[in-house]
Amino acid sequence: MNTAIILAGGVGSRMGADRPKQFLLVQGKPIISYCFDIFQNHCEIDNIVVVVDEKWQDFVEEYAEKYGVTKICGYAPAGKTRQHSIFNGLKCTDKNAGDTDIVIIHDAARPLVSDKIISDCIRGATECDGAMPVISVKDTVYQSKDGKNISSLLKRSELFAGQAPESFKFKKYYQIHKDVTDDEIGLTAGSSEIAYRHGMEICMVNGSERNLKITTVEDLETFESILKGVN
Amino acid sequence: MNTAIILAGGVGSRMGADRPKQFLLVQGKPIISYCFDIFQNHCEIDNIVVVVDEKWQDFVEEYAEKYGVTKICGYAPAGKTRQHSIFNGLKCTDKNAGDTDIVIIHDAARPLVSDKIISDCIRGATECDGAMPVISVKDTVYQSKDGKNISSLLKRSELFAGQAPESFKFKKYYQIHKDVTDDEIGLTAGSSEIAYRHGMEICMVNGSERNLKITTVEDLETFESILKGVN
Repeated sequence: MNTAIILAGGVGSRMGADRPKQFLLVQGKPIISYCFDIFQNHCEIDNIVVVVDEKWQDFVEEYAEKYGVTKICGYAPAGKTRQHSIFNGLKCTDKNAGDTDIVIIHDAARPLVSDKIISDCIRGATECDGAMPVISVKDTVYQSKDGKNISSLLKRSELFAGQAPESFKFKKYYQIHKDVTDDEIGLTAGSSEIAYRHGMEICMVNGSERNLKITTVEDLETFESILKGVN
Repeated sequence: MNTAIILAGGVGSRMGADRPKQFLLVQGKPIISYCFDIFQNHCEIDNIVVVVDEKWQDFVEEYAEKYGVTKICGYAPAGKTRQHSIFNGLKCTDKNAGDTDIVIIHDAARPLVSDKIISDCIRGATECDGAMPVISVKDTVYQSKDGKNISSLLKRSELFAGQAPESFKFKKYYQIHKDVTDDEIGLTAGSSEIAYRHGMEICMVNGSERNLKITTVEDLETFESILKGVN
């Protein structure tokens, strides 16, 4: 069984809006609902777990009903960091999970993920222990240990920017979260990082520039103009 | 003496426009002219060398005259790569250069660099061998040697995205270019990279998100809206 965990726990808004970005209405529909549509309509996704701050759960349920999202099997509370939210989503997933299940962890604020990326991630997590969509890094990236002087060069061809959804063999990934300290969970920068650090083999699949995470007003405008092109 | 080398040799346009991006008119003025204004008006810049494809030199000269850019002391031809263009600019700079000179290498397509970044780069290249403005890396960056599986984790806090202008002690930097092979120049991804690889100490100064390189239509729109806010 393949469960999508949709992370909608963020409460901040760099856009200065009245609500977290994933709940902003675009053409009358919340961003998270665009995201739900993709997972609802994807034939390889069986269940959806939503991680959301309690005060937004009614809002999410209302729109899920309005747009016919029937795969939601549970809600988990938001954690103090993204990775804590993931852990909460994993706990909720565990209630129905079998030994060979795959979990697909996505951000509600990435409403343009393609069906192909989701399928590739599921296949990747089946063949390896996990899979992550990546795009190439456009910047010239330098490493500095002290934050003052360059301390080493990195080959751009070996660098990849991680996107979501990141997908994992559920049991292995969940076990890591139960084994490590709360501090380690809090210090995790990417959901594949903690997996790799604890011995899971993570493969990369092709992400897409289009699979953007809506963070700024410019991102929102890009999303709107893509929607206009699509509809 | 401090010489700014302005790189305007690029001929491509990802924007599908009729000319390279640095020559696009914004409010009737080429992007490169906004860039010239900053260096022309900066009290620590003595000379400007322009690296430009020969067929655009008349265009550049015409607008330089129109907007009163008096610091241009020479033109150098565009090279086959960005770093080859830099080498051409260095050769042109060498005609007037003294032993303690600093060279400040900037992209014509970054017309929003601040006076402070330029001053910081000059000071940095005086105190170290070179200086580069950087911003933090927003993506979660993973390293993969084979392009298939994650092979190591990078600490985001130790990663920095390089911007321009990069600044160097002229004599040392120029000598490296004379010493290395043409292939090595061609394979250089960032102008600080070749300096660091050959033993120059490169410090980092604070860059800015605003100091964007105009590459896409979205970047151009951002530049236009910033201009409207400023003017």
